[in-house]
Amino acid sequence: MEKFLFLGGDLRMLYAAEYLNKEHSCFVYGFENAEEFPVPNVSRIIPCDCAVLPLPASSDGRHINMPYHRENLDLDVLVSAVKTGGTVFTGKSCAYLEGLCGENGLKLKNYFSREELQIMNAIPTAEGALEILLSELPITVFGSKILITGFGRIGEVTARMLKDLGARVTVAARKYEQLARASGLGCNTVHFDKLNGTLIAYDGVINTVPAPVFDRKRLMMLKKDCLIIDLASKTGVEDMELAASVGVKVIWALSLPGRTAPVSAGRIIGKTIENMLREGGE
Amino acid sequence: MEKFLFLGGDLRMLYAAEYLNKEHSCFVYGFENAEEFPVPNVSRIIPCDCAVLPLPASSDGRHINMPYHRENLDLDVLVSAVKTGGTVFTGKSCAYLEGLCGENGLKLKNYFSREELQIMNAIPTAEGALEILLSELPITVFGSKILITGFGRIGEVTARMLKDLGARVTVAARKYEQLARASGLGCNTVHFDKLNGTLIAYDGVINTVPAPVFDRKRLMMLKKDCLIIDLASKTGVEDMELAASVGVKVIWALSLPGRTAPVSAGRIIGKTIENMLREGGE
Amino acid sequence: MEKFLFLGGDLRMLYAAEYLNKEHSCFVYGFENAEEFPVPNVSRIIPCDCAVLPLPASSDGRHINMPYHRENLDLDVLVSAVKTGGTVFTGKSCAYLEGLCGENGLKLKNYFSREELQIMNAIPTAEGALEILLSELPITVFGSKILITGFGRIGEVTARMLKDLGARVTVAARKYEQLARASGLGCNTVHFDKLNGTLIAYDGVINTVPAPVFDRKRLMMLKKDCLIIDLASKTGVEDMELAASVGVKVIWALSLPGRTAPVSAGRIIGKTIENMLREGGE
Amino acid sequence: MEKFLFLGGDLRMLYAAEYLNKEHSCFVYGFENAEEFPVPNVSRIIPCDCAVLPLPASSDGRHINMPYHRENLDLDVLVSAVKTGGTVFTGKSCAYLEGLCGENGLKLKNYFSREELQIMNAIPTAEGALEILLSELPITVFGSKILITGFGRIGEVTARMLKDLGARVTVAARKYEQLARASGLGCNTVHFDKLNGTLIAYDGVINTVPAPVFDRKRLMMLKKDCLIIDLASKTGVEDMELAASVGVKVIWALSLPGRTAPVSAGRIIGKTIENMLREGGE
Repeated sequence: MEKFLFLGGDLRMLYAAEYLNKEHSCFVYGFENAEEFPVPNVSRIIPCDCAVLPLPASSDGRHINMPYHRENLDLDVLVSAVKTGGTVFTGKSCAYLEGLCGENGLKLKNYFSREELQIMNAIPTAEGALEILLSELPITVFGSKILITGFGRIGEVTARMLKDLGARVTVAARKYEQLARASGLGCNTVHFDKLNGTLIAYDGVINTVPAPVFDRKRLMMLKKDCLIIDLASKTGVEDMELAASVGVKVIWALSLPGRTAPVSAGRIIGKTIENMLREGGE
Repeated sequence: MEKFLFLGGDLRMLYAAEYLNKEHSCFVYGFENAEEFPVPNVSRIIPCDCAVLPLPASSDGRHINMPYHRENLDLDVLVSAVKTGGTVFTGKSCAYLEGLCGENGLKLKNYFSREELQIMNAIPTAEGALEILLSELPITVFGSKILITGFGRIGEVTARMLKDLGARVTVAARKYEQLARASGLGCNTVHFDKLNGTLIAYDGVINTVPAPVFDRKRLMMLKKDCLIIDLASKTGVEDMELAASVGVKVIWALSLPGRTAPVSAGRIIGKTIENMLREGGE
Repeated sequence: MEKFLFLGGDLRMLYAAEYLNKEHSCFVYGFENAEEFPVPNVSRIIPCDCAVLPLPASSDGRHINMPYHRENLDLDVLVSAVKTGGTVFTGKSCAYLEGLCGENGLKLKNYFSREELQIMNAIPTAEGALEILLSELPITVFGSKILITGFGRIGEVTARMLKDLGARVTVAARKYEQLARASGLGCNTVHFDKLNGTLIAYDGVINTVPAPVFDRKRLMMLKKDCLIIDLASKTGVEDMELAASVGVKVIWALSLPGRTAPVSAGRIIGKTIENMLREGGE
Repeated sequence: MEKFLFLGGDLRMLYAAEYLNKEHSCFVYGFENAEEFPVPNVSRIIPCDCAVLPLPASSDGRHINMPYHRENLDLDVLVSAVKTGGTVFTGKSCAYLEGLCGENGLKLKNYFSREELQIMNAIPTAEGALEILLSELPITVFGSKILITGFGRIGEVTARMLKDLGARVTVAARKYEQLARASGLGCNTVHFDKLNGTLIAYDGVINTVPAPVFDRKRLMMLKKDCLIIDLASKTGVEDMELAASVGVKVIWALSLPGRTAPVSAGRIIGKTIENMLREGGE
């Protein structure tokens, strides 16, 4: 049983703490503006075995993001908070943080780069995309024609979910193994090289590729009133104004897990840290 | 091929007209405030083989509902619009309309009472409920514990949809055959007589029973922050204020098909009328 | 808690007895050739509150079917076995049995006519049909084109199962509400009046209609090597020899639940009797 | 358009040839005992652009497997059959074949090592396992408790298929990302380190790990009458006799695609070769 101090972040971190509190002892700091506390909220930094930084840990490379607190705290606080040899769990890292931990004998581990977190996060992401589809389309998802561009973790979970709801899903990808996987889910498939000729057919598009898949030429090939939901970290739509002018609505939906299902997103972080502890203990 | 005149109603009727226009000749009247017209919009009543009244046809029993028109039209217009021996298709009826058709040699047929329309409408209804769940719950539908009370058409489609999305669905019903059907979909089942002991478990409830299933006693047995989505024509929640006071949020969601997917809802009406024509022609 | 005596039948009755034995006291008679006994096997008739006859109860209208016993027992044994006012549960009935119970003050209840039994039995029936498809078709069920004729309980469960496995399912039915239900499962639909033109497309056919759906004309329209699995109580194939001569293989698969999943089929009978007891006790 | 000669193999190769014949010109040699020929069967070796060897190409490292021919042909035939610079497609390779192609200016490409072939083959493999489950278990797959050990391509497709049929699936794996994927399909998950305590629960086990997962200790922890279907290339059951003696039935099912769905398995080979041609042409 480890003693954890969660430092800042949004509501997800409270639920991550709640999850880990089942087998460990968890405290949070930096949530004075939150309404409920599933674990004890401390008003001063207490020493601990492990600290957990939020997602992302810092916006400026020096201070911990604390949107529910009166101010952001300096990363240096870790030195006094975590015992020597202890672990700092972080969501994304930065040079200063790495140096700080290295110089002070703290282990630094990144939960956000873990494959299982990305896999688990694909579910709230896909559900967020589904909510947008249900809200925006004037037709039912059942029977609608949806294109999914890219077939990584998020593309795959989204495709399966929409297929289960009765949508007619087409997956565009470049690798034959991805096309084979998509086909095995019952989706239609199209190689990117042959995508253009199919674009007029879709009621909605879900992009997961962080590259300008929808350049000017392709935007003009889409059906009028087509909806693009862009889930990629860099938008796949080259020209937002052109899209609007040809009647294509684009919704760039980032960070869906934390926004649409903060409790689940927090539990996913908690579970990932739990896995990391188990691996470390072997 | 019949000549149809659609008289008033909301946007669904435009898409019903569009659907039937594939094999028949359709015109609409009463949509001067609409933005697009998938079939010709006429500015005066023209004679036709069949008239289609909206859903519901009339609110006051004498005038046709025309929310997209400057005023509601008198039902008497049917006499001049429809040729003798022609058919008036209506969504819900009223005494005056029945008398009018009877006296003037018009057949009166109710598309809203057709079983297949109710079955097809269960899909947009369930999708509307799903959208609310996705929007309101702080957890993913995947893994959430949802109770569905009642297992008619809507209960069944909703149960299947939520199960496909990975929710843990419990169905409460009274008839053993309904419980058997629900069990066959992989849902947990509970007889209404034993429902109370399970109520603390659910993250969300979808009620389809038009009777006070959730009386005061049951409301207080629900988990704090439980969400009730009520799809029944008469609300199943006895005391809305009590619900609020114990932290249970109730959303009474009526007429979901027309609100969440007007195009699909319109096509469903069109398809139903098409079926009625075929039956009539045999 | 009731005392039950199960008289004869196949292995299903042993598992029905095992199911009911959880809350009641069950004994079986007539299984001397069985290998295992989940409940006590008695070598002579003992008095009880309820007797359970097998499915079907009798082949000749006078003796209880006892395939695991040296001989079939006379139905008259019920008079000495069941206390006055007790209940005889039977699967299918006959005139002699009805008279016997009536004259001797025994209640007679038919579990096989219960709707929930028929619904639950649709699952092992569909699984049996699936096993045949997997065994006979040289292609995967995934991607195969399957026609299901008729859309009652069995048609519906089979359609859903095959759809989930990735088959391209077409449902032929006559009622628009059945076609609407099938469409809601994501199946293609065709009215029986327009079936003929589609017959060349199917790799396999599952018939659930107890009438000659596949008359000579239709048999000759099927693809060569097409497989027909007939689940109907009266075969839907008019001319078996013609079918063979045109290369259509027909498998008439009766009583699938007892043959492919006797344990589950037995539990279904047990659960149905449990329901009947609860209803009777209200 | 290329000219292909298919040399030997089982029926799959005929259907691979049929698939490729849509866009290319295909001939087969070595099927004199086959009953039907979807493409022309030649009685002597003809010159071609590409030769296709069967799966596996050779059992002895020198001759081509020709189970439908009077004798196996020497691999040297490739030199006269394929034009210089042409391509030999093979399923598995051997030293002699590599040398032969290298020395004679023939490209050698292995379709069996392609990721998309392995992915597509997972479907007939999973269907083959399902057929065994349906045939062997005395209960329905619906509601049965099935353990899947290993979660590669085959484990994943099998898990999804069984889940869709209503089985209660538990996946045992070692990597957290595999457990996360399995969980996302709605399966229960267990780390191999904690597997033992759960073994008594399962009605059936599907092993995909080519290592002795089921050692003597674990075999004795399984439920009596448990069924193990072993899909791994090296059996995961350490001691077959012990398994039999404790009532555990083991079915080691190899090469399911070719046995249960030769037409589909052949098309998969054809499609994979088609992909390889396209890549080569870029």
